[in-house]
Formats: sequence, structure tokens, C-alpha cells
Amino acid sequence: MALGRFDDLLKQVVRELAEPESYKEVFHQLCDGESLPSLTGLSEIVDLCRAILFPGYFGYSHITSHTIAYHTGVNVECLYNKLTEQILAGLCFDKAAEATRERATAICAQFIGRLPELRRQLGTDVIAAYEGDPAATSYGEVISCYPVIRALSNYRMAHELHLLGVPLIPRIITEMAHSETGIDIHPAATIGDYFTIDHGTGVVIGATSIIGHHVKLYQGVTLGAKSFPLDAQGNPIKGIDRHPILEDGVIVYSNSTILGRITIGRGAVIGGNVWVTEDVPAGTKVLQKR
Amino acid sequence: MALGRFDDLLKQVVRELAEPESYKEVFHQLCDGESLPSLTGLSEIVDLCRAILFPGYFGYSHITSHTIAYHTGVNVECLYNKLTEQILAGLCFDKAAEATRERATAICAQFIGRLPELRRQLGTDVIAAYEGDPAATSYGEVISCYPVIRALSNYRMAHELHLLGVPLIPRIITEMAHSETGIDIHPAATIGDYFTIDHGTGVVIGATSIIGHHVKLYQGVTLGAKSFPLDAQGNPIKGIDRHPILEDGVIVYSNSTILGRITIGRGAVIGGNVWVTEDVPAGTKVLQKR
Amino acid sequence: MALGRFDDLLKQVVRELAEPESYKEVFHQLCDGESLPSLTGLSEIVDLCRAILFPGYFGYSHITSHTIAYHTGVNVECLYNKLTEQILAGLCFDKAAEATRERATAICAQFIGRLPELRRQLGTDVIAAYEGDPAATSYGEVISCYPVIRALSNYRMAHELHLLGVPLIPRIITEMAHSETGIDIHPAATIGDYFTIDHGTGVVIGATSIIGHHVKLYQGVTLGAKSFPLDAQGNPIKGIDRHPILEDGVIVYSNSTILGRITIGRGAVIGGNVWVTEDVPAGTKVLQKR
Amino acid sequence: MALGRFDDLLKQVVRELAEPESYKEVFHQLCDGESLPSLTGLSEIVDLCRAILFPGYFGYSHITSHTIAYHTGVNVECLYNKLTEQILAGLCFDKAAEATRERATAICAQFIGRLPELRRQLGTDVIAAYEGDPAATSYGEVISCYPVIRALSNYRMAHELHLLGVPLIPRIITEMAHSETGIDIHPAATIGDYFTIDHGTGVVIGATSIIGHHVKLYQGVTLGAKSFPLDAQGNPIKGIDRHPILEDGVIVYSNSTILGRITIGRGAVIGGNVWVTEDVPAGTKVLQKR
Amino acid sequence: MALGRFDDLLKQVVRELAEPESYKEVFHQLCDGESLPSLTGLSEIVDLCRAILFPGYFGYSHITSHTIAYHTGVNVECLYNKLTEQILAGLCFDKAAEATRERATAICAQFIGRLPELRRQLGTDVIAAYEGDPAATSYGEVISCYPVIRALSNYRMAHELHLLGVPLIPRIITEMAHSETGIDIHPAATIGDYFTIDHGTGVVIGATSIIGHHVKLYQGVTLGAKSFPLDAQGNPIKGIDRHPILEDGVIVYSNSTILGRITIGRGAVIGGNVWVTEDVPAGTKVLQKR
Amino acid sequence: MALGRFDDLLKQVVRELAEPESYKEVFHQLCDGESLPSLTGLSEIVDLCRAILFPGYFGYSHITSHTIAYHTGVNVECLYNKLTEQILAGLCFDKAAEATRERATAICAQFIGRLPELRRQLGTDVIAAYEGDPAATSYGEVISCYPVIRALSNYRMAHELHLLGVPLIPRIITEMAHSETGIDIHPAATIGDYFTIDHGTGVVIGATSIIGHHVKLYQGVTLGAKSFPLDAQGNPIKGIDRHPILEDGVIVYSNSTILGRITIGRGAVIGGNVWVTEDVPAGTKVLQKR
Repeated sequence: MALGRFDDLLKQVVRELAEPESYKEVFHQLCDGESLPSLTGLSEIVDLCRAILFPGYFGYSHITSHTIAYHTGVNVECLYNKLTEQILAGLCFDKAAEATRERATAICAQFIGRLPELRRQLGTDVIAAYEGDPAATSYGEVISCYPVIRALSNYRMAHELHLLGVPLIPRIITEMAHSETGIDIHPAATIGDYFTIDHGTGVVIGATSIIGHHVKLYQGVTLGAKSFPLDAQGNPIKGIDRHPILEDGVIVYSNSTILGRITIGRGAVIGGNVWVTEDVPAGTKVLQKR
Repeated sequence: MALGRFDDLLKQVVRELAEPESYKEVFHQLCDGESLPSLTGLSEIVDLCRAILFPGYFGYSHITSHTIAYHTGVNVECLYNKLTEQILAGLCFDKAAEATRERATAICAQFIGRLPELRRQLGTDVIAAYEGDPAATSYGEVISCYPVIRALSNYRMAHELHLLGVPLIPRIITEMAHSETGIDIHPAATIGDYFTIDHGTGVVIGATSIIGHHVKLYQGVTLGAKSFPLDAQGNPIKGIDRHPILEDGVIVYSNSTILGRITIGRGAVIGGNVWVTEDVPAGTKVLQKR
Repeated sequence: MALGRFDDLLKQVVRELAEPESYKEVFHQLCDGESLPSLTGLSEIVDLCRAILFPGYFGYSHITSHTIAYHTGVNVECLYNKLTEQILAGLCFDKAAEATRERATAICAQFIGRLPELRRQLGTDVIAAYEGDPAATSYGEVISCYPVIRALSNYRMAHELHLLGVPLIPRIITEMAHSETGIDIHPAATIGDYFTIDHGTGVVIGATSIIGHHVKLYQGVTLGAKSFPLDAQGNPIKGIDRHPILEDGVIVYSNSTILGRITIGRGAVIGGNVWVTEDVPAGTKVLQKR
Repeated sequence: MALGRFDDLLKQVVRELAEPESYKEVFHQLCDGESLPSLTGLSEIVDLCRAILFPGYFGYSHITSHTIAYHTGVNVECLYNKLTEQILAGLCFDKAAEATRERATAICAQFIGRLPELRRQLGTDVIAAYEGDPAATSYGEVISCYPVIRALSNYRMAHELHLLGVPLIPRIITEMAHSETGIDIHPAATIGDYFTIDHGTGVVIGATSIIGHHVKLYQGVTLGAKSFPLDAQGNPIKGIDRHPILEDGVIVYSNSTILGRITIGRGAVIGGNVWVTEDVPAGTKVLQKR
Repeated sequence: MALGRFDDLLKQVVRELAEPESYKEVFHQLCDGESLPSLTGLSEIVDLCRAILFPGYFGYSHITSHTIAYHTGVNVECLYNKLTEQILAGLCFDKAAEATRERATAICAQFIGRLPELRRQLGTDVIAAYEGDPAATSYGEVISCYPVIRALSNYRMAHELHLLGVPLIPRIITEMAHSETGIDIHPAATIGDYFTIDHGTGVVIGATSIIGHHVKLYQGVTLGAKSFPLDAQGNPIKGIDRHPILEDGVIVYSNSTILGRITIGRGAVIGGNVWVTEDVPAGTKVLQKR
Repeated sequence: MALGRFDDLLKQVVRELAEPESYKEVFHQLCDGESLPSLTGLSEIVDLCRAILFPGYFGYSHITSHTIAYHTGVNVECLYNKLTEQILAGLCFDKAAEATRERATAICAQFIGRLPELRRQLGTDVIAAYEGDPAATSYGEVISCYPVIRALSNYRMAHELHLLGVPLIPRIITEMAHSETGIDIHPAATIGDYFTIDHGTGVVIGATSIIGHHVKLYQGVTLGAKSFPLDAQGNPIKGIDRHPILEDGVIVYSNSTILGRITIGRGAVIGGNVWVTEDVPAGTKVLQKR
């Protein structure tokens, strides 16, 4: 194609793409002039958090018990600066309150203050994954390799940010783990200690799910909604409790689907490939009929 | 190991690996001297396209309505240069026609000219995802987080390139989204407006599938082939229509499998975990027997 | 928040996170002062191996038959240096023997010596993927795009390292492919030539699985363990053969689950969505009852 | 050395280096908590300015007259964001006024508004370098290669920032050119149009120098101060006019030194290796006595 | 400043800077649509050449005699590809002949063919630097540290490209060394074997200089032109022999200036700080009168 | 040029360049298999040292008095690891003793232990530069901009490494500063506190120079050797004291040259452009005769 003709095409295409009417669905109009949360920036934040929470396994690998305080100090300070920027960018999406640097700073500091508890909780997840898998040879292998640990480290960070009222960003963080591991946990879900998922690909845990302690899932398990009540206009009503409750000690085998606001009682076992839409009493087993 | 011994091993291994007979299956012999499409290059192209199609959400996050024309201009020009190179490299794989820079340039310009329509169509997908999910809080959340948007942005680019006769590259682009999202859409499939997939992991949409407007799929759905007719030599016959047709308004719930050149009629609903190999009339519901 | 207050918080959080008691589950204590295997380093190693095994398709894309020896030489030497470092770091996790540079070097050299055989075997996998898929248009498309090739290239590397007694690292390498492709193959599994997996998302192949030649799986197939025998303390007994044996020529369609140390005989076909927990004789077909 | 002993040394050295008394000369105490100007950031700013002022020669080399507006738009916007941050950091060093983002923004916008005039002036310098050197073959060669153009592009940027009252940063920018070219021009010096320096290494132009139009210097020329008047405490009095005035059309050959607030009259020629400390009348020649 | 006002300023400044009349001196008009030589690209080329010519000292530092062929092969091939692109871009500046890829390729191949001779010649320069400096402890120190080696490696590459008729690029390459070392050698100068310069800062060697074998210069030496004959329009006549000839074995001490087409005879010694404008007979010494 | 012909040329050139006889002057033969010091690695080491010695001015610019210990800890640990590698590589060049990791580690630890004293000394240099220049406005400006500080930070590091017996590396480090600033200080020279150089381009300080406290030099000053005593074979005798001694408080103005093992007495002043080859008594002034 003659170069001159491409120049005309280029100008034409740019004109069309820069026409405001053309981008109204795909371009953020809330606060023109502010920047949007950056996917690259949030990815760095996840890496920093993992480096803080699992020293040596993520980030700088030469760390020792003598230098851990220096590295943690530098990483936490860096996290504070980067995360504050991203929270500020995310606050634009909260139409109810003003997006101020003061609010972003205060939220970020609260998040930083929760890091020790986050690490304690993730430590219980490491133990659960190790004890539940005969192929696991050490905690180190679990931390380095198991997708559940990556999914949970993102989920637990994101859940804290969700509790602190940060919009959008928690969801971006759990979707990063979804992409990395195939495990899709909504940041609003509630999950207890010693939680584990084996293999993990295809697991879905919906926004209003409540999961107790010592629960174990296998690959392909869905904790979903049965149907969405619609409002007068036929749109789904938002914010209703619509996902299952799994009490302490529940096990769900691969590819089973549990739908609706039902309760799977303490210690119940759901076999593989089962479709469950009603409460399951504590201590019972549900198997596929064949 | 003594260093000297490794030097001998190195030379021996290199000699074996550089022996032409040894690499005939794994090394491209069609046009020795030309370069192959580069995965890194194509990944940059996908990033550029996303930055053009969803300004601010992908790529540079500080963009405003005042600077969008500058950024779009630079990105489109850059896309034109990079994509032309890759198309030229890809044309090597088309044994039927010559791989010339003129042809690559012409194809690339046609693709560029389609960008505004691509964005319009992706805008309908954003709306469909937002309206279909009670957990979605804004278009921005959908664009930033939802795997379906990434899968569709790659698929819609790749489909255009496929229609323009570019070999190999469309498939590489949809496989990039497959890796990122767990959603595997063949670039040759035909998909209408307002299409969405919830969660998405494990979805497979085969090459000859035809999907209407306002269709919704859930995670784990397969639109596959039932069996392959074999030719006289026992090899699968290529190019036969072998995947389903989903008419407007169809919904398919999680983990269902629809196989063969069958038609799911307008507005039909396929429940979860169902195996469908025959036509489904418009407006009907198919549920798993239990 | 006032800056002064954040400084106090920072010091407090760092103090808590650097408290040895607090990180005992999440920080590697075996050989303080040694470095852990680096995820970035292992990712570079996988890229190098792929560039060596599939010249032009991965890594530098301008390679020709005239320059392949130079590129292979540089890449193999580089692989040798980087992999030796990582093996040395990984040997820390082997409590039975000392982690010496001599041992790491010797293992690495043995691995290098196996590269030509690895490439031969991967060549058979490319042929199997091409011949089994009517949508495949060339070996080049298979190598560039098909997730199974990435999963198998990582698995076959990792399996060699596993056979050479390297701890931890093989598992990290297969989990990298799991993240990239949704295909989860344990490095200890045994897999013959001409193996292929279509689409692949959700496939799980357990540690003691044995797979013959010319076997084909579809997406969502699990080769898993039925149940874990527990020891006197109620912990799973490690190292027992607990996954299936698939003999030559077996085909397993999508989303089927095969559990326990059972044998699927030569040429048997398992349909989609089937749950199999008992031996299947050679040449038979198992279909879902509907 | 035993690792344990290094850990003790490390802690000891860090303690000494983090002791406030120890770093009082080498660490900025003015506004603890604010960031200092970043050398990397300023280096990017110089690259951006050069890319704007000499399109195609610096920065992206594929630019055409059709795309220059897009590239200039993106670069100027980027310059605005980055330069505002650096000016804000630099304002800390101005003890007389508060360092506010508003002030930084206003200064930066004034600087941006001066870019067209800066480019006009640098255009005259390109012409002067081309016409004065029999070895120069094109304006393009002068812009790409001649150190004087780099020194003057930095000086002219820095001089604008100096006139706008920005502390510290102008000096950092001219010292970057000093490092790159061996030409040391103080940002406070005043220099007319069509100025050139041949070869350039070792040239020094002091802070209160005034240079007219069409002036040419050769390598090693110093425009310096003769002596510094001291105040009552024996310290040099700051801010006194102490460097030479060179009127229009003056030429100074290599390695000559001109010291003190003297005037070299219009069209005068100073030969090589000469030491001048008194006024030189217009139109005369000063040669080394031999 | 209000953001809205900056948007107006931005548009205004971009409009002025993109106005063709405004950039006619500073933007290359010869072949709009072609790219200009890239400074980054040429810098990579210099690094590649140095890595080829001084293996291990520049570029990859682990090279051994067993792997030198692999590294050299990869580097030379890479050099060929990158240099061809840059030569093609540079040929735009040659108004006398067409800039074709064929011509660029042919020139580049001739340059590649000269690399062994280039290395031989640079080897003599290393010996000269080592033998002439009592502080030098090894050839390795000379190659790693001495600015003269960097200046000569760039000059000798650039001189070959100059002889092959490449415009602009040779000058860019020698100016890179000028910036790095303070030594300014014009690529058209002719320099024999075993040449060295001590310290080097401030040395200038003009375009028509001719230097024999075994010549040594010290810092600050200028081999310059005395005056430029002007043509009828008062412009310097280009292309006249105007710089000195230094015969074999000449030594020139620091800061001396030798001007005009004069001959310094075989073995002559010029002392420091001397101004020479007339022939010096072979074997004589010229000292500063004091 | 036909591609086939280039392939032949490539093989031919590589063969010539990999011929051991051809690279004997330009390739390090001492300890084949060990790596040479890496210029990139040493450049990172210089950056780390500067970041440690001048916190905030070099390296991370957001540092505060609250986080300085964390950053210093991380930087010093990183310096220890990187510098040990480079020292080990450098020890190859010391033919008198074995290059062991133990020796490298011990030397590096001693160097680390000297950092507080190095910073104290550089603090005196900052004060000297500030007090001696009427244009200097703050210590911060001196640290950020003045080339003398960069030259001295490299020299003072390099001098410590020289005293610890490290070969080659000290010289590489001072030559990096030479390239950056035009100031060439041999690492073996001895320099007291409160030393400064104004402007700096072209300054040369030879290996056996001894400089007291409170000495000031201007640009272009050479402290050189007068002539080299030759041995019986006509080669310069290495290791003889051959450069000047400058006692406390000496000032040397621009472009003066001081040659040979002479003493410039306490408080003496040497004017500009002077050539000095004999002792100068304390307190006297030496001016150019005119």
C-alpha cells in the first residue's frame, strides 16, 4: 500500500477512535484527569506483598534471618508508597465518597498494619496444603509451587482491602490470581483458617460464600448462585446472599457444583461430579448416583 | 565435574542438536532465512490493541479526553509497524500465496481500518457482562477485571486477522488469551454482539461454531465436535462444519458439553453439567436428569 | 495520616514481621545463608530450554539452519550455568544428602546430555497433536500455539530432573506450565511417546500415573487418587502407587475422571463426563449412561 | 570469612551509617519526607526534551511529518507530568518560598510554553555549527553527532528553568551535558543565537558570562573568574558579576583563557593558548606572543 | 494551574511544534517515511563489535576458548542484522546514490569481512598502550580500563565504514567515543598500527590527519586546521587537506597544538604546551620556550 | 547480497575470529574458565556505593531518616554479594597469589568495614567544594551536580580496594569516573581530606602523587611524570616514585602542568597555564611569565 494512503487511513482511524461518542462504554468518564488503577502497578504490589509474606520464596532469594528486617523494611515502605497511589486511583470508582489522598493514606496504613495477621493466616493454609497432600514433601514445596497458595495470598490481601472499602482493586487482584492459577475467588467471600484447594483449576467461589476452618476443595468445584432474583426492570438485584455456606471441616471433591444460599454442615463430604442445591446435614456424605 | 569434560559434552550435545535430521519436526523449514512470528512481538501487539480499544484501562493509565488523540495516534502507528512485521512473518505459513511485504502491508491497513468497529462490538460485550452479573459494580470493573473481556478482545482481533487470510497468527493470539483466562475460543468461530462468559475457566469454543447475539455461557462449557469423519487414509478430514450453532439469546450453564453440528434454538436454556448432542428447539430448557 | 505516625507503624510492622517465631511456617529454615531457588531464574531456564528444543519458535526468531549451531551453543552453555545454580539451591531441600556444587554440576551435565532425546520425544508429541486435530494446519502452528506442547516441554524437562534426584525444582517447573496452560502434570508421572491433550484446561495427571504411547486426553480429564491410606497417626501415607495406568492407544474424552491404581487397557476409549474407578479391559468403550 | 562474622559486621556498619550525626553533610535535611530530585528522572526529562526539539534524531526514529503531532502530543504531556514532579522535588532547596504542587505546576506550564522558542533558538545553533565546520556535511550530521548541540540543548532548557526560579535542577541538567560532552556551561550564563563550539572538550563558561550572537569558541576555552572578592569572614562573596562579556561575532581559538568581568568587543578574535584578563577592543586580534 | 488551562496550552504548543515551517532546520526532510539512524541502535552495535573484538572483556564475561566460536557466531550474525538496518537508514543522507537494502547489505558484509583485520590492528594498539605506560600491569588492564582502547575501537570501526562510503554513521560512532573518553578522532583520519594516547581527555584529531605507526600522543593534544580557505561566497571550502601528517614514531606531549597541513618527521618529539604550525624535521625535539 | 553467500562469509569470519592464535593479545588467557570482571557489574557496584554514601542523592530518592537503616542494610548486603563476585574475578589478574573465594570474601568484608570512614572523608570533600565556589548554593547542589564528588567517590572506593591488594578493579572504577567527569585520578594516588577540583575536565593525577589536606585544583591540571627511567631492555621501569607531592593548602589554577617527583610546599599557589618541573617552596606563588 502506498505510504501516503496509509497516512490518510491513520488520520481517519485516529479521528474515529478519539471521537467521545465512540468510547463512552470503554473509557472511564468519572474523573477525567485522574489516572486509573494501573495493572502493572497492582502486579508489582502483589509481588511485593508476596515477598513480604513469604520471604525468600518470592522476591529476593538470598534473604537470611539476619537481613530479613532490612528487606522487610524496604519492601513495606515501598508497598506503602505504591499501594497508596493505586488506592487513590481506585477511590474514583466509589461514587459515595470523595477520593482524597488522606483517605487513601489512612486505608493503606490500616492494610499495612494487618500484614502480620495476614501472614499468620497464610501460614495455616500452608500447613493445610502440606498435610492434605501425600505428594507434598515440605512446606517450601507448598509455598513455591502450589497454586492454592498464590490464589489465597491474593484473595487474603484483596479481602482486607475489600473490608477497608476500597473499590475495584480487590477484584483486579483476585482476577490476577484467577489468571495465574485458574482459581476464581471473589474478594468479598469469607474464608477461615487452614483452607486448601487441591490442583485448583476451574474452582469458583462466589461473592457471598462463607467458608469455615479446615475446609478442603478439589479442582473444578463451583460455589455459585442458583438464580438471580430480578427487580421490576428485569435486572438482577445486587447484594443478596446467594452463595453457599460451608461449615468447618467440609470436603468437596472434584468438579462438584454447589449452588444457592444453602448450608453444608460441619464435617460433611461432597463426592466428585455432584450437583447440590439443598442443605446437607453435618457429618453426611453426598455421592453421585450411578 | 571437571570443566574439560563439560566442554566435550557441550560440543557433543550442540553437534547433535544442530544436526538437520534431528530437528526436522520441531524447526520450521518452509522459508529458511525468514524469521518466524515472534511470541514477544505478538504479545506487544495484543497489549497495543487493548490500549487502543480500552484507553486508560490498558497501557498508559493517565490518559484524558484531551490527550486521547495523541496516544491513539502513536499507538495505531506503532501497531501498524509491528503488526506488518508479524503478518509478513506469518505469511510464510501460507503455502498458497507469496509472502510479500506489499501483501502484509495491505492486510495490516485493512485491520487498522476495522478498529473502530472492533471497539463498538467490544463495547456491547462490556454491557452484556455488566448487566448479567449482580456482582459487577461498573463498566470499569468489567473492563479491568473480567477474563471474558480479555478473551474476547483477543478473539475479536484474531477473528479479523483470520478473515483477512492471515495464517497462524490468529491462533497464537487466541491461545495467549487461553493461557491468560482459561477460555479457549478458536479464531475461526463466529460470535455476535453482546456475548459474555461468566468466570470462564475451561470454556472451549470450536472452529466452526456459530454464536448469535446476546448469548451467555458459564465456566466449563464446551462447544465441541462429536467425531471426526476420516478420509481413506484414516486421517481426520479438515474443514468440515462440526461444531454447534447457538442462536440469539441462548444461555448455557456451567460445565455443559454441546457436541456436533446441531442447533440450539433462539432463547433456549441449557442447564449445568448437561451433555447435548442433538438439536434443541427454540425457547426450551434442557436440564440434567437426576 | 500524619507522616510521623506512619513511621511508627512501619517500625512496628517490620519488627513483628522480622520476629523469627512469626515466620517459622513461611520461611525456609533448612540452610540459612543459602539462597532458595528463584522463580525468575527457573522461568529463564524454561525459556532457554524451549529455545533449544524448538529453535525459532521460542527465543530468537531469526535463526536459520546456518546459525543454529551458534545459537544452540550459546544457549546450552547459558543453560548449564543457570541451571547449575538453581539445582544447587534446590539440593538444600534434600535432607538425605549434602548440597554440594560438585553434585549440582554433575546432575546438570547429565540433564544437558539428555536434551537430544528430550527433543526427539517432544517431536513425537508434535506429530500426535497435529494428526489428532482437524483444525491443525502445520507442525509450526502446533508448536507455536498448542498448550499441550508447552505443558509437555515443561513436564519432560521436569521429569528428567526428577529422575536425576533434584528436589522441588521439577515441581516448580510443572506448576509454571500449569499456570500457563491449565494442565497439571506431576513431574513424577511416566508418559510415553506421541502423547497429546486437546485444549487441556483442567487436566490433572497425578504423581504415580503411568501413560503408554499414542495416548490422547481431552480437556478436564483427571487421573487422580481414589483415597489415601492413612498411617497410625491419621496422616496420608506418602509414596504409594495410587494413580491410574493408561496403556498404549487409550483415548479419554473431556471432563472424565479416572481414580485409583486401575488399568485402562490398550486401545480402550473412555467417553466424556464419565467417572471410572475400576479396570477397563483393552479395546472396550466406556460411555456415560443417560 | 565465616558467615556469622559477616552478619555482625553488617549490623555494625549499618548502625554506623544510619547514625544521624554521621550523615549530616551528605544527606539532605531540609524537608525530611519529601523526595529529592532523581537523577534518573531528570535524565529521562532531558531525553524527552531532545525528542521533542529534534524529532526523529532523538527518541523514536521512525517519525514522519504525518505523525509528528501525535508523538509531540504524547511527549509533551509526558514531559509535563515528569517535570512537574522533579520541579516540586527541587523546590525544597529554595529556602525562600514554599514548595507547593501549584507552584511546580505553574512553572512547568511556563516552561512548556517556551518550547517553540527554544527550538527556534537551537535551530540557529545548528546552522552556526554547520556553516562553521568544513567537515560538516548536513544539518542532520550536526544534530546527530556534534557535542555542542547536546550541550546547548541542555543549557537552553536549564537556562529557562533557571529564569523561572527553579533551584538545583538547572545545574544538574547542565552537568549531565558536561559529563556527556566535556562542555561545562553554567545555567545562569546568557548566550545569544547562532552560538557554536568546535570539538568542545574542556570548555568552561561561568555563571555570569554574557555571550552575544554569532559567537564561536574552540575546545579548551575558559570564560572564568579572575579572583573572588572575600567577605569579612574570608568566604567568597556570592552573586557578583565576575565572568567575561563576549559581544556579537567574537571568535576564541582553542585552549585560551579569558578571566574576569572584561569585555571582548564585537568581532574580536582571540588566538589559541592565550591568557586574557583585560578588555579587548572590537575588531582586534589577540595572538600568543612567541 | 487549572487542568483545563493546561489542556489548552498543550494543544497550542503541540500545534506550534508540529507546524512544518517551525521544524525545518531540526527535522530530517530528505526521505520522509524512512527512519533515521537510531542512537540506541548504534550504541548496541558498538557494544556488539567490542564484544566480538575483545571477547570476555566486553559483553558476556564467562566466555572461554571452548565457547568463543558460539558466542562469536551469535554476535556476528546479530551485528549483521542490526548494522544493515542502520546503514540503510544512514544511506538516506547520501544524496548521490539510492538507499537500497541491497547496497546496505553489501556494505555490511564487507565490514563483517574486515573484523579479523580490525582485531589484529587493535591488538597492536593494546601492546603500544601496555609498553608505553609504567603503571600498566597487564594487557587485560589496558583493554578493560584505558580510554584509548575504547576511542580506537570506535575509530577503527568507523574508519572502515567511512571507507565503505557510509555517511553519517561513522561520525556518530566516533562521537560516542568522544563522549565516553574525551578523545575526538574524526573517522576520516588515517592512523597506523601501534598507536596510543595517554590519559586522552581533550585530544582532537582532524579529518585529514595522517598518522604513521608507533605514534604516541598525550592528553590535550590537538591535530587541527590552521585556517579555512573560503570560497567566493565566504563559506569554508570543504574537502581540502588541512590537518598535520605525523610520521612513524612521533611523540607529542600533553596540551600541544599542531595546526595545518604540515609534516612532523619520523621520530620527532614535540614537548608539552607547544604551538606548532610549521614542518618539524625527522628526529628533532621541539620544546616550549620559557 | 545473496543470503547463501553471507552464510559462507559468516562461517569464515567466525572461524578466523575463534582461531586461538588470532586473539592472543585481546583475550584473557590466565585462568580460562573463570569469568572476567564485568563492566556492568562494577557499574552497579559504584551505583550501590554512591547510594550508601550519599543517601537520597543517588539511588532511591524517597529515603527518610526513618527508613535509612532499612535501605542501608539492603544496599550493604547487596554490595557485599556483588563485590565479592567481582573481587574474585579480579584476583585472577594477581599472578602472585591464588584467587580463592575465601580471600575475596575477606577483602570485601574489610572494604565494607571502611564505608563509614569513606563517608566521613567524602563529607570533607563536599564542604571543600561548597566553600570554594561562590556559585554553590548548598551541599545538596554539590553532591548532586559537581563532577569532583563523583570522581572522588570513585577514587576513594578504588583507593581502598587498591590498598587491600585487589588488582585491576580499582583502575576500572577510576576510569569509570574519568569517562563520566573527565577527571583522571589513578587509584594508587594518595589524597588527603577537604580536597576539591573545580570544573575538572582534563585533570590528570598520576599513580605516585601525594596530596595533602585542603588542596584545590582547577580544570586541565596535570600531576604527571617527567620521564621514565628505562631498564636495560629500553622498557620503562615500573613502580618508581615519579609524580609530584602537593602539601596542605596548595592551589593549582587551570591548565597548569606539574611534572616529576617534586614538592609543592604548604600553601603554595600555582597560577594558570604554568609548566612546573622543580620544587616550589611553601607559601610562594608561581605565575606564567608574559
